[in-house]
Amino acid sequence: MQNRLLLTATVEREEALRVTPAGVPVLEVWLRHQSRQTEAGIERDVACEIQAVIAGEKARQLSGRLSGCQIEAQGFVCQRSLRNARLVLHIEHVEFVKG
Amino acid sequence: MQNRLLLTATVEREEALRVTPAGVPVLEVWLRHQSRQTEAGIERDVACEIQAVIAGEKARQLSGRLSGCQIEAQGFVCQRSLRNARLVLHIEHVEFVKG
Repeated sequence: MQNRLLLTATVEREEALRVTPAGVPVLEVWLRHQSRQTEAGIERDVACEIQAVIAGEKARQLSGRLSGCQIEAQGFVCQRSLRNARLVLHIEHVEFVKG
Repeated sequence: MQNRLLLTATVEREEALRVTPAGVPVLEVWLRHQSRQTEAGIERDVACEIQAVIAGEKARQLSGRLSGCQIEAQGFVCQRSLRNARLVLHIEHVEFVKG
């Protein structure tokens, strides 16, 4: 079952690192993407904002280092909760592009 | 600038084909994804629903054929409109998985 989003984005906001009751470090960030894409042969502007979360040791390593950076994030998308259908990107790989 | 979502999903709903004022055929569908993913070394259930749109000749070719099918969809994500931040998948490639 495929579920893979690859997104170049700017980290608009980085929350403080938190640790779940099970002891897993979690870092929440807000990403903003802007680009030009081609659809049905026509180039168009594309923009979106998406909440993203990084869990585990990677969260601890990246904490305090993402805000304002341009990154290439890769991971799976999931709805925020049973009652909140908003999509959240669960980041598994991060590459710094700029900043 | 990377913006690529690859998602295996069931087409829960398919709207009637419509044509934009510029004459571009557009097909809107609702996709439901469910899978198991690994995050911070822990396997977890993942579910999400996402609205998707197919534009151009592909929309005409697929119209009436997607409802209830499991597909592998690939494309870019964009917010629905300037005032609506909900993400929409703009599908560029479709493969039928089942149904």
